[in-house]
Amino acid sequence: MFLTVTLNAALDLTYRVRRLEPHASHRIREVTERPGGKGLNVARVLAALGYEATVTGFVGGGTGAELRGHLTEEPAASGVRDALVPVAGTTRRTVGVVDETTGDTTQFNEPGPHISPAEWTAFLGAYRELLREDVRAVALCGSLPPGVPVGAYAALVREARAAGVPALLDTSGEPLRRGLAARPELIKPNGQELADITGTTDPLRAARGAQRRGARSVAASLGADGMLLVTPDGLWHADPVERLAGNPTGAGDSAVAALLSGLAEGLSWRDMLARAVALSAATVRAPVAGEFDADTYARLLPLVRISEPEEPEAPA
Amino acid sequence: MFLTVTLNAALDLTYRVRRLEPHASHRIREVTERPGGKGLNVARVLAALGYEATVTGFVGGGTGAELRGHLTEEPAASGVRDALVPVAGTTRRTVGVVDETTGDTTQFNEPGPHISPAEWTAFLGAYRELLREDVRAVALCGSLPPGVPVGAYAALVREARAAGVPALLDTSGEPLRRGLAARPELIKPNGQELADITGTTDPLRAARGAQRRGARSVAASLGADGMLLVTPDGLWHADPVERLAGNPTGAGDSAVAALLSGLAEGLSWRDMLARAVALSAATVRAPVAGEFDADTYARLLPLVRISEPEEPEAPA
Repeated sequence: MFLTVTLNAALDLTYRVRRLEPHASHRIREVTERPGGKGLNVARVLAALGYEATVTGFVGGGTGAELRGHLTEEPAASGVRDALVPVAGTTRRTVGVVDETTGDTTQFNEPGPHISPAEWTAFLGAYRELLREDVRAVALCGSLPPGVPVGAYAALVREARAAGVPALLDTSGEPLRRGLAARPELIKPNGQELADITGTTDPLRAARGAQRRGARSVAASLGADGMLLVTPDGLWHADPVERLAGNPTGAGDSAVAALLSGLAEGLSWRDMLARAVALSAATVRAPVAGEFDADTYARLLPLVRISEPEEPEAPA
Repeated sequence: MFLTVTLNAALDLTYRVRRLEPHASHRIREVTERPGGKGLNVARVLAALGYEATVTGFVGGGTGAELRGHLTEEPAASGVRDALVPVAGTTRRTVGVVDETTGDTTQFNEPGPHISPAEWTAFLGAYRELLREDVRAVALCGSLPPGVPVGAYAALVREARAAGVPALLDTSGEPLRRGLAARPELIKPNGQELADITGTTDPLRAARGAQRRGARSVAASLGADGMLLVTPDGLWHADPVERLAGNPTGAGDSAVAALLSGLAEGLSWRDMLARAVALSAATVRAPVAGEFDADTYARLLPLVRISEPEEPEAPA
């Protein structure tokens, strides 16, 4: 099975309003409520692709109970196993307000529960136990809730390496910088996240910088510039596929699901990249993160254009 | 005890953000979570004034469980008795986003659970039972959740009359219009709500119109124009007190608590009006609805200026 870690899981609420007007009162026309957090989305996409996925991380309080209900009750979640670790604090909510006039979303993210040192230690124990199962690859995803040490992902990458499980790290800022030092198999930053940790906005130079800091390979999602995959075996670049109208939330999580499954199956880098790009695009066509449009995925997969750019000469 | 009815109770969330930017993503700096809905606020204010208050209405789902937790666990809620009636649907949330730069609030209100005919009938039975207790007065507050008949408040006013309990009705639109026909003791609309049901924007003429439609007395909150009390015994007008910076949410609910306690105690209309104005203003000084600043209340009560306007001659 695949393991995904979501330390700051969330109950995601989506509110549809006719038009967002700051400082006015809005009657919500439609509420949707679902389990949220990058790792949970990754697991749902893996399950929809037919893989078994186990989710872990922290969960607590009334919102945590609601999240767990959705996670196990919904048909879309079949194939997802709940191995979340209970804490005293309360799982955060995120609220996305969709303006039906413009189609834009305004997002509000609660900070998450405070995690005590004892809870973090308990989680490490549970994580170690899970790694003893037949884990093909682990994805470590998203922000850290308050109280979790900033070096948390470095510790989780190290445990995975010790257990012989390839680790994909998808976070940003200081947790990503620290995580690199533990040498994850793959990271999946966007252009901004890559620039933030390396100090350069040139994607290839930044990806090489991330490798020097410890990442074995780097899959950089570059928006309108497609996706760049920098590995010990070479470079690959995918053009973005046709621009699809829809909900971009979760496209990055689908890319992680594609890369994770590709890593575990020993797929070629080129095929992994094509899978990541097609699955991301098919997610934009689905109404919520953690789901994708299967027909769009099947149609786009053979259409992804991949090139092998030349490595520029190092400056003298 | 006092009874308050909140058919569409809510879990009120307040999010503080540095600045609200439509279509951007916001990290919430601070989350507060409390029981919401007009009748619950009224009950909390009554309890803070030293009265016993029982709350009823509908409650359900994970948010309902969170609401009940707050209602009974918080020290501010001591003196409030939970007689909410469980339903299959889920209690709604309201989200208020406070912009720390401007101080303004942007409000998002979920619609509320769908109430089945059987659930409405069960509620009527529970309400009748409560009216058999020693109820000094009942406040019927707020909007109706989906599925509740639009004549709901008329039915609740009639039951109260049959039990000899004075009823204060604080709602708007068609539920208010229908409720008037059942002859409530007092209604507390604002200027707009009064205009909506009577078709006139002149507060005194509109209040007389509401009386003709069935209200025994009308307390109209007119914002910068103060408060107008129109009764079978005469007219009273209160100037607004000093403009206080703060959170106006719940000021109307505090006015209801003041009027309800005044009705039950046989206070003079003039004293009831002064209590309503001072308590409303003291609520603006408290951080959340359902609470008030006791020192501000004590200071303002003797300062409220009340006049007895002349009844204008009827047009020929």
